[in-house]
Amino acid sequence: MPFEPSAPPPLLDVFTLGESMVRLTAPSPLRIEQAATFEAYVAGAETNVAVALARLGKRAAWFSRLPDTPLGRLAANFVRQYGVDVSGTLFVPEERMGLYFLERGMPPRPSRVWYDRANSAASRLKPSDLPLEQLAAARWLHLTGITPALSPSCEATCHAAISHARTHGLTFSFDVNYRSLLWSPQQARATLMPFCHAADVVFIASRDAAALFEVTGDAAQQAERLHQLWGGSVIVTDGANGAAAHAQRDAAACKAFVVQVVERVGAGDAFAAGVICRLLEGAPLSDALSFGAALAALKLSIAGDVALVTRQEVEALIATGGTALHR
Amino acid sequence: MPFEPSAPPPLLDVFTLGESMVRLTAPSPLRIEQAATFEAYVAGAETNVAVALARLGKRAAWFSRLPDTPLGRLAANFVRQYGVDVSGTLFVPEERMGLYFLERGMPPRPSRVWYDRANSAASRLKPSDLPLEQLAAARWLHLTGITPALSPSCEATCHAAISHARTHGLTFSFDVNYRSLLWSPQQARATLMPFCHAADVVFIASRDAAALFEVTGDAAQQAERLHQLWGGSVIVTDGANGAAAHAQRDAAACKAFVVQVVERVGAGDAFAAGVICRLLEGAPLSDALSFGAALAALKLSIAGDVALVTRQEVEALIATGGTALHR
Amino acid sequence: MPFEPSAPPPLLDVFTLGESMVRLTAPSPLRIEQAATFEAYVAGAETNVAVALARLGKRAAWFSRLPDTPLGRLAANFVRQYGVDVSGTLFVPEERMGLYFLERGMPPRPSRVWYDRANSAASRLKPSDLPLEQLAAARWLHLTGITPALSPSCEATCHAAISHARTHGLTFSFDVNYRSLLWSPQQARATLMPFCHAADVVFIASRDAAALFEVTGDAAQQAERLHQLWGGSVIVTDGANGAAAHAQRDAAACKAFVVQVVERVGAGDAFAAGVICRLLEGAPLSDALSFGAALAALKLSIAGDVALVTRQEVEALIATGGTALHR
Amino acid sequence: MPFEPSAPPPLLDVFTLGESMVRLTAPSPLRIEQAATFEAYVAGAETNVAVALARLGKRAAWFSRLPDTPLGRLAANFVRQYGVDVSGTLFVPEERMGLYFLERGMPPRPSRVWYDRANSAASRLKPSDLPLEQLAAARWLHLTGITPALSPSCEATCHAAISHARTHGLTFSFDVNYRSLLWSPQQARATLMPFCHAADVVFIASRDAAALFEVTGDAAQQAERLHQLWGGSVIVTDGANGAAAHAQRDAAACKAFVVQVVERVGAGDAFAAGVICRLLEGAPLSDALSFGAALAALKLSIAGDVALVTRQEVEALIATGGTALHR
Amino acid sequence: MPFEPSAPPPLLDVFTLGESMVRLTAPSPLRIEQAATFEAYVAGAETNVAVALARLGKRAAWFSRLPDTPLGRLAANFVRQYGVDVSGTLFVPEERMGLYFLERGMPPRPSRVWYDRANSAASRLKPSDLPLEQLAAARWLHLTGITPALSPSCEATCHAAISHARTHGLTFSFDVNYRSLLWSPQQARATLMPFCHAADVVFIASRDAAALFEVTGDAAQQAERLHQLWGGSVIVTDGANGAAAHAQRDAAACKAFVVQVVERVGAGDAFAAGVICRLLEGAPLSDALSFGAALAALKLSIAGDVALVTRQEVEALIATGGTALHR
Amino acid sequence: MPFEPSAPPPLLDVFTLGESMVRLTAPSPLRIEQAATFEAYVAGAETNVAVALARLGKRAAWFSRLPDTPLGRLAANFVRQYGVDVSGTLFVPEERMGLYFLERGMPPRPSRVWYDRANSAASRLKPSDLPLEQLAAARWLHLTGITPALSPSCEATCHAAISHARTHGLTFSFDVNYRSLLWSPQQARATLMPFCHAADVVFIASRDAAALFEVTGDAAQQAERLHQLWGGSVIVTDGANGAAAHAQRDAAACKAFVVQVVERVGAGDAFAAGVICRLLEGAPLSDALSFGAALAALKLSIAGDVALVTRQEVEALIATGGTALHR
Repeated sequence: MPFEPSAPPPLLDVFTLGESMVRLTAPSPLRIEQAATFEAYVAGAETNVAVALARLGKRAAWFSRLPDTPLGRLAANFVRQYGVDVSGTLFVPEERMGLYFLERGMPPRPSRVWYDRANSAASRLKPSDLPLEQLAAARWLHLTGITPALSPSCEATCHAAISHARTHGLTFSFDVNYRSLLWSPQQARATLMPFCHAADVVFIASRDAAALFEVTGDAAQQAERLHQLWGGSVIVTDGANGAAAHAQRDAAACKAFVVQVVERVGAGDAFAAGVICRLLEGAPLSDALSFGAALAALKLSIAGDVALVTRQEVEALIATGGTALHR
Repeated sequence: MPFEPSAPPPLLDVFTLGESMVRLTAPSPLRIEQAATFEAYVAGAETNVAVALARLGKRAAWFSRLPDTPLGRLAANFVRQYGVDVSGTLFVPEERMGLYFLERGMPPRPSRVWYDRANSAASRLKPSDLPLEQLAAARWLHLTGITPALSPSCEATCHAAISHARTHGLTFSFDVNYRSLLWSPQQARATLMPFCHAADVVFIASRDAAALFEVTGDAAQQAERLHQLWGGSVIVTDGANGAAAHAQRDAAACKAFVVQVVERVGAGDAFAAGVICRLLEGAPLSDALSFGAALAALKLSIAGDVALVTRQEVEALIATGGTALHR
Repeated sequence: MPFEPSAPPPLLDVFTLGESMVRLTAPSPLRIEQAATFEAYVAGAETNVAVALARLGKRAAWFSRLPDTPLGRLAANFVRQYGVDVSGTLFVPEERMGLYFLERGMPPRPSRVWYDRANSAASRLKPSDLPLEQLAAARWLHLTGITPALSPSCEATCHAAISHARTHGLTFSFDVNYRSLLWSPQQARATLMPFCHAADVVFIASRDAAALFEVTGDAAQQAERLHQLWGGSVIVTDGANGAAAHAQRDAAACKAFVVQVVERVGAGDAFAAGVICRLLEGAPLSDALSFGAALAALKLSIAGDVALVTRQEVEALIATGGTALHR
Repeated sequence: MPFEPSAPPPLLDVFTLGESMVRLTAPSPLRIEQAATFEAYVAGAETNVAVALARLGKRAAWFSRLPDTPLGRLAANFVRQYGVDVSGTLFVPEERMGLYFLERGMPPRPSRVWYDRANSAASRLKPSDLPLEQLAAARWLHLTGITPALSPSCEATCHAAISHARTHGLTFSFDVNYRSLLWSPQQARATLMPFCHAADVVFIASRDAAALFEVTGDAAQQAERLHQLWGGSVIVTDGANGAAAHAQRDAAACKAFVVQVVERVGAGDAFAAGVICRLLEGAPLSDALSFGAALAALKLSIAGDVALVTRQEVEALIATGGTALHR
Repeated sequence: MPFEPSAPPPLLDVFTLGESMVRLTAPSPLRIEQAATFEAYVAGAETNVAVALARLGKRAAWFSRLPDTPLGRLAANFVRQYGVDVSGTLFVPEERMGLYFLERGMPPRPSRVWYDRANSAASRLKPSDLPLEQLAAARWLHLTGITPALSPSCEATCHAAISHARTHGLTFSFDVNYRSLLWSPQQARATLMPFCHAADVVFIASRDAAALFEVTGDAAQQAERLHQLWGGSVIVTDGANGAAAHAQRDAAACKAFVVQVVERVGAGDAFAAGVICRLLEGAPLSDALSFGAALAALKLSIAGDVALVTRQEVEALIATGGTALHR
Repeated sequence: MPFEPSAPPPLLDVFTLGESMVRLTAPSPLRIEQAATFEAYVAGAETNVAVALARLGKRAAWFSRLPDTPLGRLAANFVRQYGVDVSGTLFVPEERMGLYFLERGMPPRPSRVWYDRANSAASRLKPSDLPLEQLAAARWLHLTGITPALSPSCEATCHAAISHARTHGLTFSFDVNYRSLLWSPQQARATLMPFCHAADVVFIASRDAAALFEVTGDAAQQAERLHQLWGGSVIVTDGANGAAAHAQRDAAACKAFVVQVVERVGAGDAFAAGVICRLLEGAPLSDALSFGAALAALKLSIAGDVALVTRQEVEALIATGGTALHR
């Protein structure tokens, strides 16, 4: 493995961990059955957040377990190129890379995903793998609800990370990110509830709030209700309807920008990254939401999973008021 | 699944079974770490034999277990397009397709393969899956040493097929096809020995004869010695050195044609198909070897795993004497 | 030519015949004058119907005349891969493959087609070429109005097929499919009228009903009037306005689904295949129309000429009510 | 350099001069940071006009200064292939080709351009380079406001061309074409004002009329006001709102056609070419505007910078009334 | 059709005529049966000569008959971009473009061609189509033996061109260019003999000299014998063995350069163009042969049919002595 | 600009600086005049060395000046993905990226390069830009003779870096890397001589030793002579003939491995990186040469400019003895 420039970890802003997969995509507009080639992307909710934060000038690190194969290196290269510190990631022999196959749809044919991630190297993450020193050097820990769905040892790793983060005073954010192809709402609810209670900031999609936690209403109502349940700040995203947040002493909402979607994946992760970036900078909640919404809107205009934008582009969009979705 | 035209199986020439994988290949001359796309091929020793036989006018059927996913259908479509009967193949939900990743090398960098085929649908083939009626309607059964390497149930399926073939008077050919990434020579030897004894015709590479069965010498010497051990016809291939065969009442040898290699995979399968084709037609062993050598030579000039040639092209190559490799 | 698995034809559901061409398409969004490459598709109204039926589990056979060249084999491979029986098709030396060039437009520039199909092998189909035994073994004969436009011998072949179908009790469906680049409305009317009279089921586009047979009104009115003229069931399609049918003891209509068009070609053929599929299964006319409309809607979301869908996808679209076009 | 067929210049219709660049474009929908390849186009306002005129049957010549390198030859080949006379163009050693990089956007992310044209061979055009004999043989001189922005010697070359054109009785048209990446509105205004006064026909975008010359109102009002200022015919284009013209004894307006945009670049040049074509043919101003609008609409449906249409296509669009944008 | 800059033809160096086809090529290393796309080239012996001459600074014109379709325009654009005058070429409606399909081979699989050029627009060239004024303005007429093979009217057109050339004092060169897929050696001999007698310069491949005219021996011997038969200068090419010429008062020979072949097509045409170029400049025969050999060698290193080189590149190759093939 | 993980620089192994360009390459086998797309690579002698060292586990940093544009970020991403620390690199607005165009040749047509790097951001590097703290934290400084060729301020920057390195006890290696398109041998000799004297290790190609310093003989003789002149270790590379080194108390030589070249660029840089890697590890000179030769051989089998290998691959090649070039 190549040298990681910061082996003795510097002070970090954000530490995150999880699985990144190689996504194999049939070239648009072909179906998989028609494909003679597949486009390869690196895709993972946590790497999406880390890359976006690094592009915005934050010191971000991502930790995972990757096979010591070309595919594993390809994934590490992808994340590292945007300035994310991957020096803590383990490279293991004789294991497999998580994959998934994506076919983009067109109405009335839906886009579809076929996971092939069982028994991946990342699914074998365990608490003792954690780079504790690096984690402790960060200001913020970010996790998602996908990792606990992968395996009991992954779930345990998340709990261990939170515990260590608590000890060292990190803020902890959690994105529920329910994946119906991985588990049932009941399983997810039982497993994810403790994370929602533990988090200082919870990100949750409006439809997941309803499906997992039976909290209905509009995003603002859901955010308030979930805040009452869990205690921390809760940010509910509702796609083109914008987002709403409810915190201890504050509540805020934002509209979504008008977009023409190039690729939908990663927009929620871009939103979370934008919010975390501004909260790290001490901005008020409403500013953080706007920043997240702008970043998510730009992401939707970009192919692949990560928000390859510059900070100026985000700020320019906010400044021009963009073309906010009025209703 | 689409309709298979010959659900009530017609009289077949050759029945074969095994795993076909989706091969994901970095576009030449790129390494996998550099690849933004992967070329997809369908690759399996037995489908290579079946396709070549169908192209030569033989009635060939292939049996396997495929996931009921776009990748599974893509594999079936690929084999079926060349006229192979795949009506016996099972489509199963919730299982995975065997994959492998290929990186083509250039001296001094070798070509390399990374298998990702564990737990594939095909690895779960079991005796009771066999389409016995279809098998019984054939004249010839062809198996390879790859299938028994996949799982005990695959090994048992091979034995059951041979037993059924015996009952119905089929000729049985076996291609040893040792794969060092799947098992050790010792394991392979123990498992494959009974197949070699049972076969009417054994195909084996010269290097495998040495590595697995410690039979050395040139191809002719190896063929003779293995024939003495196993009793059936033995055909030893030795790459650019040609091939040699030793049978009950006959021995033969052939030279290899001069080739410029486009893709090496599948040449051995093309050779076996060519030999089987001519033996089915009652040709003498030496004719069969020449035909196999010509088919293999043409395959080496073709991208992908199968010998997409016409019978006239094979015959024209033999007729012109080609540009035989003299030494 | 490779072996066809079902040389002695099994009991078939649907027999069809006609020309399939190689379609050479400038890559979007380029004009032909800008193209350095052309995408190759296999395109023919009857093969589109046969493929869709085979994908839905029906036993379908297609008969034609193809040049014994790589292009001819490419066409046969394409159709065969989806499970259509092409064992009756003739391969002839020294003839040419029908071609056409397609340039996709964007408003206000229309899509345009340049045919180059004169003197194709298929245009020389003649009655004595017909695989009568295979035809007789089917339950349903499907023809289109394109074939009689190709040559007098093609027209005669269609009449011979109908006559043989009558003798053996097949249902006969006919899709008018008027092509203005091949002949005038007057020529088409004179030639196609006998087919419309002979057919048990006629498919016709609303605009063709008006242009060829001077029957106007909405689709339901046109269907009723044409039924009165011809005696058989008449199904009139009207694009985004849906379709209507009028039969001896029944009438029905369906709406079109909301779609985002990827490629328009082949939607009518998918509709016909969906209707035929359900009629073969004894479904009521209204069910058949809905099924056809769903299949056509899915086809419009797919590149190329054929409806590469699974039966579950069609049924899921119908079940969810899709997003039916209300007005 | 290859032979130019018409070295002794024949009677020309239109002479134009300016810079054509190689445009390097990230493949849609990728950002430049994601691009592994760049598409190469040849792009220049004046070559766009010349190509469109040649396609419409006019004898058009383009003059420039190109490096004697493969990129310079590539640019000349591109223009020449459509029948433009480039025999006057100078090929100079040791200079560079003007380049620009284009990234196509998707809302809310704008398309962006990065010029890399400083010190290009074309920026060194000087009056003594002019092929005066060829210019004098033409009926019409067309220049744009981009050329004077490139360098003082380019500005001087434009003035010299106008002076020579005056002497030989050519009509002179000028397209203001303000480029904010090249200079400020103040600089542009000062430099371009004399050209606007000198021109028989001025083309100007409505937004440029406002930004440079502080003339507001709708296109018709702007055209009238600018006509009063400059004396010649003034044609103001306003995108989807159409265009308006005001001349000595005439005024006219046209609507824009409904389009689905493939590539926006070059539409204004196509419009100018269409207008010039019809004015050369003696058509009334309103006809010329319609023709220009139709040509621009077709251009918007075509990739690249030039209007690759036939005269029949333009006339067919006008004849069918197209799908004019009503409001 | 776009304007041709030199409608009233200027003084020309070389006038040629013949058919140019669109060549559709399977992307290497695929067979046609495997191709999902075809690369499009414009290919014709005479256009190859004309383009090479224009690149070398000669004034060359090509005359043909092209369909007024995008393919016809694509062919004209291709030739025109390199500076060849195509103003005499006729564009006709309702006819077809000659096509051929090419599959590149790899030993032992040969490259193969499938013509689809019957009934092309060019095959209908007739004497009255000839642009006599343009022909008369040239110094040299070049024809090949392909054109008379296309149709009797093509043959007559060639004879008419020669007659007109004689009248106006043009030198006439003829390249025998035997195509076995078009006619038999006997037919070719009978038809081409008068052209060989009429020509001032004949180009012929050594194998064609043997097959058509039963003149054997090495190239020098063949050239001498054919010169005795026909009276004019005869230049015999013999691939990697070089070429030899025999004229009234002169004889010469040249070696071939060492090459690594990218694409073989067009090398003979490049050779002819190089020889003609130098003969036009009054160079001795031996210089002309060397120049032709250098141009042909460079052509072999270039994809497509034409020799896209600069004069400096040819001269540099000759000056360095290249890496001449010694034996 | 995104966050660089190690802003406070950690202890480094190697610090290097210089220009990296975007290389735009015509897709093989096309000439630039034929190219519709260009492949983009990031190319620079010093980044090649840094990447190879990082892949081998060394802590490497690269310093430069890049435009704050997508192309500048693309270059930084490329280098960073392989684990090189680019945190010291300056991003400047309003400047241009160095470019070059490459056309790959085939005998007898040579590969050719057209530089377009004048006035690049990197050419404006100046001593005060140097990240002195980062430089001081390294063990080794590596420079090449390309940087002083770019501008006087670049030359001064190199001298400043050496001076600072001296102060902090770094080893200094210098690769002469003469580029004839940038300057004459005389200019290069005068400018580079002081660097050769200052360096602890000099890398120089045999042909450059002759052309610049008039030192002839075989590599070993040249190395000895140059060592006597300059005092430091001198390593002379001689392509397929291997390399030789002469140091204070040691001399060594190595053979080149047999290779099939995919892309020649970057092999010398890979060699230097391999040697530096092993010298940093305290290996004897002969080991370092072998390691460098193996890394260079692997690089030649890889597309692009950098040696994307793993340490195991290098060691495996050395262990198997590879297929050393004997003579």
